[in-house]
Amino acid sequence: MTKSQRSYAIIGTGAVGGFYGARLQKAGLDVHYLLHRDYQQVMQSGLIIESVDGDFTLPQVQAYASVEKMPACDVVIVALKTTQNHLLPQLLPPVLKDSGVVLLLQNGLDIESTAFALLNNQTLLSGLCFICSNKVAPGHIRHLDYSAITLGQYGKDYQAQGITEPLRQVAQDFESAGIPMQLTEDLMFARWQKLVWNIPYNGLSVILDARTDEIMGNADSLELVKQLMQEVLAGAKSCDRHIPTSFIDKMLDHTANMKPYKTSMKLDYDHQQPLELNAIFGNPLKLATGKGATLPQITTLYRQLRFLDTRNRQ
Amino acid sequence: MTKSQRSYAIIGTGAVGGFYGARLQKAGLDVHYLLHRDYQQVMQSGLIIESVDGDFTLPQVQAYASVEKMPACDVVIVALKTTQNHLLPQLLPPVLKDSGVVLLLQNGLDIESTAFALLNNQTLLSGLCFICSNKVAPGHIRHLDYSAITLGQYGKDYQAQGITEPLRQVAQDFESAGIPMQLTEDLMFARWQKLVWNIPYNGLSVILDARTDEIMGNADSLELVKQLMQEVLAGAKSCDRHIPTSFIDKMLDHTANMKPYKTSMKLDYDHQQPLELNAIFGNPLKLATGKGATLPQITTLYRQLRFLDTRNRQ
Repeated sequence: MTKSQRSYAIIGTGAVGGFYGARLQKAGLDVHYLLHRDYQQVMQSGLIIESVDGDFTLPQVQAYASVEKMPACDVVIVALKTTQNHLLPQLLPPVLKDSGVVLLLQNGLDIESTAFALLNNQTLLSGLCFICSNKVAPGHIRHLDYSAITLGQYGKDYQAQGITEPLRQVAQDFESAGIPMQLTEDLMFARWQKLVWNIPYNGLSVILDARTDEIMGNADSLELVKQLMQEVLAGAKSCDRHIPTSFIDKMLDHTANMKPYKTSMKLDYDHQQPLELNAIFGNPLKLATGKGATLPQITTLYRQLRFLDTRNRQ
Repeated sequence: MTKSQRSYAIIGTGAVGGFYGARLQKAGLDVHYLLHRDYQQVMQSGLIIESVDGDFTLPQVQAYASVEKMPACDVVIVALKTTQNHLLPQLLPPVLKDSGVVLLLQNGLDIESTAFALLNNQTLLSGLCFICSNKVAPGHIRHLDYSAITLGQYGKDYQAQGITEPLRQVAQDFESAGIPMQLTEDLMFARWQKLVWNIPYNGLSVILDARTDEIMGNADSLELVKQLMQEVLAGAKSCDRHIPTSFIDKMLDHTANMKPYKTSMKLDYDHQQPLELNAIFGNPLKLATGKGATLPQITTLYRQLRFLDTRNRQ
């Protein structure tokens, strides 16, 4: 099967799904978008991508208001927030070919189980996006920085699946759209590694009401970030994933050089949307404590965030 | 020396100093108040105490705008916030008799050193107030609940001083004013014990922007309170002070039965006043970590609070 023949469904056409879908379509792929609130607007005006890689508009997109009207696709990209994964039993089967591939583009750990349970011999890929992008209006996405994806094939309990053919094919499609791709044999390692960033910055951005530059610019919050990163490494280690401590310095340098950024969790909080607390805090804590690790600082943040999230949506 | 002969100076005539000073004066003692911003108002209208124990007004009080105009007193009550203790070298010596007693009514741990260094054979008493009171306007104090004081004599590094004669005399004066007094031979124990309440509730009230009832009413913040209290017990233990775990249940019951309350640290935060972070967090952490204890959850709160306090006063 050549690149140009693969069809893509995008479940969750927001800051992430909308951006990558639009890039795939621009590269010539056949992309079908599921939309909810933004359906009318996108049917009329298409997708607008403001991007550091170059702005572009797709005036015509194949948009759908329900999965029943969508064709079954070769690849189904799930770019919902993990807080919406309970909808997958309704959303996923109708759009997935019998020989299809599901690709989750979501943050967190142990977020694959709902999708995995829905498969009939299809393949589940799971990816981590290193991207700063926001949806600024219906069908209008602002892409601020980065776009790389780390991709691996998921097996039960994160058993290593190696670099498989479906993995290579999907990566090839994204690469044809100019997206830097990294393939991993060890998805769990990649997910723990991403938590080194997500746990401190997502958590503190909400608790301290602060952007990344404010967190980096204060000696106390910076020290807190470092200590939290050390705990994430301890959590990873309890799952036999050994992230070197030099990775912490790399993440700190990286963040210090980023444009001031409101994390996705802070944006969710400001929009009174549910926070991805299970995916980013609860599941890693459950896994690590199940292995005998204690992560008291991360646990403290988790409890504070659950308090704030509950009150925020009352 | 009989009760009626002892003269009192109040350094810091606010929610705490104003309340106890007024009660002592009402009981017939000779009380002299140092005031700053509220001086004119109190000279004109005296002190107004709205209190669960009964409202009263003192139309005439001996008010002073500077210590130089005050008489040297038998007992000098320091009821400033600990963040003002750097002013004591200016404020304390002029109002303290050679045979006098200093009484600190302040929260926290290791807050006695500045006053202690200023003594010339005088006695330093140190007390913990269990009181809910606020200053609602200049010279106007609202006393909501409780009023008891735990009092001990301070010796260097909290060496036990026993129940001394000055301790008994001052306690007698307060008791004559209807204040329930508890005398302690082990001031450090009493201070650690009070931190069991102050560390979780003062800290979380600022970080979560929450009253005591909100903190108690959410399963996550309640669990966080319990875990923080356990860490305070671990800190106390590192200083050879063994607080029984049953004390935690007592504090939780006590707080559940309190009227909804904004902690003093939260009030300071809302008024953009400096928070008592060294007294309540920094000093206990320094002592405990110096003894080899690690208190990661308290450390997390401390760093968050320092970030918030710095930004709050910029």
